[in-house]
Amino acid sequence: MNSEQIQQLIAEMTLEEKVGQLTQFAGVFYSTHENDTPLTGRIDFPVNETIIEASGSVLGIAGAKKLIDIQEMHLQKSRLKIPLLFMADVINGYETIFPIPLGLGSTWDPELVEELQAVSAKEAASAGLHVSFAPMVDLVRDPRWGRVMESTGEDPYLNEQFAEATVRGLQGSDLLHNMDHIAACVKHFAAYGAAEAGRDYNTVDLSERELREMHMPAYIAALNAGVKLVMTAFNTVHSIPASANTQLLRGMLRKEYGFDGVVISDYGAVQELIPHGVAENEEEAAEKALRAGVDIDMMSLCYAQSLSELIHEKKLDESLLDEAVERILQLKNDLGLFEDPYRATSEEREQATLGHASHKQLARKAAEKSAVLLKNENVLPLQDRERLALIGPYADNNDLLGEWSIFGKMEDTATLKDKLEPTFYAKGAEMYERNQKLLDEALHIANQADIIVLALGEGRDRSGEGRSRASITLAPCQIELAKKLKELGKPIVVTLFNARPLDLSELEPYVDAILECWHPGSEGAAAIINLLFGKANPSGKLTMSFPRATGQIPVYYNSYQTGRPLPAGSDERFFSRYIDIANEPLYPFGFGLSYAAFEYSQLRATNLNLQKTETLTVEVDVTNTSDVAGEEIVQLYLQDPVAEVVRPVKELKGFKKILLAPHETKTITFEINEEMLRYHHSDLTYSSDPGTFFVYINGSSKCDEANKLELQLIHS
Amino acid sequence: MNSEQIQQLIAEMTLEEKVGQLTQFAGVFYSTHENDTPLTGRIDFPVNETIIEASGSVLGIAGAKKLIDIQEMHLQKSRLKIPLLFMADVINGYETIFPIPLGLGSTWDPELVEELQAVSAKEAASAGLHVSFAPMVDLVRDPRWGRVMESTGEDPYLNEQFAEATVRGLQGSDLLHNMDHIAACVKHFAAYGAAEAGRDYNTVDLSERELREMHMPAYIAALNAGVKLVMTAFNTVHSIPASANTQLLRGMLRKEYGFDGVVISDYGAVQELIPHGVAENEEEAAEKALRAGVDIDMMSLCYAQSLSELIHEKKLDESLLDEAVERILQLKNDLGLFEDPYRATSEEREQATLGHASHKQLARKAAEKSAVLLKNENVLPLQDRERLALIGPYADNNDLLGEWSIFGKMEDTATLKDKLEPTFYAKGAEMYERNQKLLDEALHIANQADIIVLALGEGRDRSGEGRSRASITLAPCQIELAKKLKELGKPIVVTLFNARPLDLSELEPYVDAILECWHPGSEGAAAIINLLFGKANPSGKLTMSFPRATGQIPVYYNSYQTGRPLPAGSDERFFSRYIDIANEPLYPFGFGLSYAAFEYSQLRATNLNLQKTETLTVEVDVTNTSDVAGEEIVQLYLQDPVAEVVRPVKELKGFKKILLAPHETKTITFEINEEMLRYHHSDLTYSSDPGTFFVYINGSSKCDEANKLELQLIHS
Repeated sequence: MNSEQIQQLIAEMTLEEKVGQLTQFAGVFYSTHENDTPLTGRIDFPVNETIIEASGSVLGIAGAKKLIDIQEMHLQKSRLKIPLLFMADVINGYETIFPIPLGLGSTWDPELVEELQAVSAKEAASAGLHVSFAPMVDLVRDPRWGRVMESTGEDPYLNEQFAEATVRGLQGSDLLHNMDHIAACVKHFAAYGAAEAGRDYNTVDLSERELREMHMPAYIAALNAGVKLVMTAFNTVHSIPASANTQLLRGMLRKEYGFDGVVISDYGAVQELIPHGVAENEEEAAEKALRAGVDIDMMSLCYAQSLSELIHEKKLDESLLDEAVERILQLKNDLGLFEDPYRATSEEREQATLGHASHKQLARKAAEKSAVLLKNENVLPLQDRERLALIGPYADNNDLLGEWSIFGKMEDTATLKDKLEPTFYAKGAEMYERNQKLLDEALHIANQADIIVLALGEGRDRSGEGRSRASITLAPCQIELAKKLKELGKPIVVTLFNARPLDLSELEPYVDAILECWHPGSEGAAAIINLLFGKANPSGKLTMSFPRATGQIPVYYNSYQTGRPLPAGSDERFFSRYIDIANEPLYPFGFGLSYAAFEYSQLRATNLNLQKTETLTVEVDVTNTSDVAGEEIVQLYLQDPVAEVVRPVKELKGFKKILLAPHETKTITFEINEEMLRYHHSDLTYSSDPGTFFVYINGSSKCDEANKLELQLIHS
Repeated sequence: MNSEQIQQLIAEMTLEEKVGQLTQFAGVFYSTHENDTPLTGRIDFPVNETIIEASGSVLGIAGAKKLIDIQEMHLQKSRLKIPLLFMADVINGYETIFPIPLGLGSTWDPELVEELQAVSAKEAASAGLHVSFAPMVDLVRDPRWGRVMESTGEDPYLNEQFAEATVRGLQGSDLLHNMDHIAACVKHFAAYGAAEAGRDYNTVDLSERELREMHMPAYIAALNAGVKLVMTAFNTVHSIPASANTQLLRGMLRKEYGFDGVVISDYGAVQELIPHGVAENEEEAAEKALRAGVDIDMMSLCYAQSLSELIHEKKLDESLLDEAVERILQLKNDLGLFEDPYRATSEEREQATLGHASHKQLARKAAEKSAVLLKNENVLPLQDRERLALIGPYADNNDLLGEWSIFGKMEDTATLKDKLEPTFYAKGAEMYERNQKLLDEALHIANQADIIVLALGEGRDRSGEGRSRASITLAPCQIELAKKLKELGKPIVVTLFNARPLDLSELEPYVDAILECWHPGSEGAAAIINLLFGKANPSGKLTMSFPRATGQIPVYYNSYQTGRPLPAGSDERFFSRYIDIANEPLYPFGFGLSYAAFEYSQLRATNLNLQKTETLTVEVDVTNTSDVAGEEIVQLYLQDPVAEVVRPVKELKGFKKILLAPHETKTITFEINEEMLRYHHSDLTYSSDPGTFFVYINGSSKCDEANKLELQLIHS
């Protein structure tokens, strides 16, 4: 269709038909046998058949046969034959499940993420889906929030890279003709990750400068990558819920950033304007949301029951409705649905696609690359000849797919035990709670082995949406188990399966190695075995700080310079510090060990002055000083020590993932230009200032403060 | 002097003399024998005699003889005979120490606070002081921050009342002629209480609406009460440190709020513009601070060493300097120092004033009224005939004065043991750390008694400036002591001495009563004994929530409405909640028990409609259903359920402290007017909206949600 045809179609539509396009309800209302639709909010409202028949899109169901059937039925009844859009949360894979996004972030490998999101899109497309609610690019600094699992972490620049990669991977370069791709939806616009006290759906308050400087970049990156949809956040932005926030949606998103795609509310968010206290009733909620710029009302009756009346009563201008309809029809057209409402979906294609061996291989690779080695006191990699005892709640546990793996098959997922085939094995899947009998058994079994592999963590039911935790430690019985095992005097290797930064301060002293495996996906167990035995070498680095204690939250590497920075090693009183713990997190952003060892030397620049219109090159030599090959993530940090506003202590501005053979040295170069030194000034203008800046290149955000290059930016 | 004379004096001053007026250094530089000057920051910079001789004011020393000597010496050397100003932190008393401000807040008795601040001023004035760095009115929501002790809590309205009361108490109604008063200095402008992660001196980020709605009211209240000085905060406000923040100081404080008094930096804050990264060096720091509106540079060399040069070089206009000098001279003149540079200070007056019996009596009264009874399972008040065991680190501990009691006499302070004269007593002042011998002794002694009084807490060295804690629990050995004592099966009464809300979740189940005593001041022990034995009836109510866990921070009663409020009793997933603890704090704002019991009934209004220009009256009957007389703090909360922006779930808008005889009923009335319903809209205008609002009257912020009045505000 061309845009004239779309206009013509709109002209033929009744008011009710238009309103229908703006409503979306869960698949449970379409297929009565459907009990597995994921529902992430209220469903206790009276959706009737008329509303369902009019709706323009469907939430949260997939499967070629099912969606073909629903589309067929829909088109039979649709007066103007406008096809349905099928949308769902395909976050880290459809059937083949990759590591959770927080794990994917730890790969520092946007190309890999693009590749696996393309696989994810291919599987989802084969199952009849048109839109995935990914990427989630919310900047996260509070591990209490259960949804940090769905983010790639605490850094704006890194989140930008993954936002773009995910959009490219899902949408491909030719969405209209390449049926292996689906539309992406960036979320949650904006700043959902800043929920106060880490409590999901809680209020967000931040300054406009902070919003623009830290939170907006990743959303903008997704927009620049051509993302088709934007989902509104549940939270307030400047005291107004995102779904009623005209300044945010029409001002920033549409006008300033030029987004012309579809804006969809999060689940029930339009109706939630009522409990939020900015709308008195459903009608007012609908009016405010449409005025603000929400095109699709997901899972509430506000639009369905009020928009026609509001327009009849002239409280809303029909042109507002028409604009929204046009954007939705345009999206359908962008997907070619008017020409092929099934978008080449078939049961055959689905069967040939889902869980393909090449997908599984990629899932294993991603799991290997997302794991982060947090500690290793000469115990990893394991030697084949050693007698292993595998112990702990994750020893034989297939809960490896993460909370968003709606279409994944947990029952087909191999456990560590399946893959490790340990000499000894102690049951303990129940050990989230203290159980003396299991504890005794575990100790008895561990005592017979040379090395203990202790599989700990927290299950999918401890994280994700609506799953904030006030405590981010492991279950006390897991710590107790580690302490008791330590008394046996045998090396202990912890494999950790979880979906948020945990407080590992109590565990850490009792174990010899910690491999952060995240919820690693369908091929997680195989990947972990490869890592444990050195068939793969850990290369992941954290993208979110692991706090030393809950009382340290929020702790993040790119914090602002204070007036009283604690001098290294100081324990004096009148500095910005806690009197009971160190300021630094237990494991910082950018940190991760390898079986290889890397040394950085000869930090240098081609030029000490950076002209505004030019580029300069900084270089560093990185040497693998070990006898094994390994990948290193070389990180470029910049610091602007004096500016118009207080700036972060450092900021990631580039990274390179390199492979170094044993004892190999490579010279790594980064280009630096003026754009990389821009920031939002107090009047919100985005520009750079001339003057000194510092360059750090390191394998972690914890840089040697002495080892920095001092360069000058020249405005002339 | 009149203002012409001040102008003339300025005209006679050299540039250096003017700059001198703008500098302030600690007393340690004035009297070499002085080792007790409190220093709350760096002192390792080269202050020379010339700088000291030129300085216009002195920090942190007191004592009639000493200050008379220094003033005499100064005037001998001063070419124009401009007297010195002596300033110090007299926060909760000079020699007679009252409870810490967080305890004073718990009295909900601004009149009492005004009275005791007048006593405080009288003592300080007798010791030669002219200015106290009080009131601190920062809104606090994070008990990790060590300085919450110095605030009156988490509520803007309540903080307003105490801000005004403190200014009135310190300054009196005729500062010029009444030598028993001193000038007040409101601090820390602005929003110092919002330090991120509760870490002192850390960055602050909040929206301008939040700043104006929640943080500004108490500062403005102090301004309206005529406060003479304002101290800048250490933190950033909208990304610029307060001491360089022109918009904050010249824009809001001077222009918008009309403040024409002296602005003084906090300790070293001008120099800290350098580590903050908004000034390259001392000269730039001085330039930025003076431009922004800082009159006095406290404890840095920036002004002293750079201002003259900056003016010589025409980088700063001398008129900026002259304005600052004028304000400082005007303050000296307001205190009558040009006429009497000693302001009637004498050693005789000092001796007759300090620690006067009437002051001590007031201190005891304040301590009685500030204590908050958090739990009482039929054990308090104690009966005289019972055999008591007094146990715990606070049993015989005179650390009762709080961190700001610089001029208080800890050595003369009675301990609980001194006053209680218990049957049995176990040493345990050292029990902040585990000590098996002391633990065994305590158990042995406790076993002989009928009732155990367990004195727990954290010492002054655990709170105050520079004393943030990541953990806000009691020391583990104190919890262990309570658990072991519980096994003896005897009633346990905890008296708690501390200066921040603590996480008492682990202690609470093991003890029968908890009396929050704060750091109660000089007469604390006597007051606590009166409370324990029922000679005084506890009436304090919390002004800052006590969290259920560190992971719940920040938790406060006037939080914003979310889109997914957790229904009462619900444990469902997709609401704003934690999966491991309840949303509510352990003890909420406004909560406190009495030996009496109060019932609220018959909530009613004279009128269901509030006209914009009128007032309506709401009433409630409060009955003392017990056999003992008691004071109750009756609290009025309003809620605006639908507004232009998201509003708090409720807000304190009035309170009355009443005394009820046994079985007496009183009808309590509150006037409500339109002004009480105003709030900052998204465009920052401050006004009310017509429509529904709810009224709650209760003895705590935890109101019965069903028991509310629904009223209408009519704009017509």
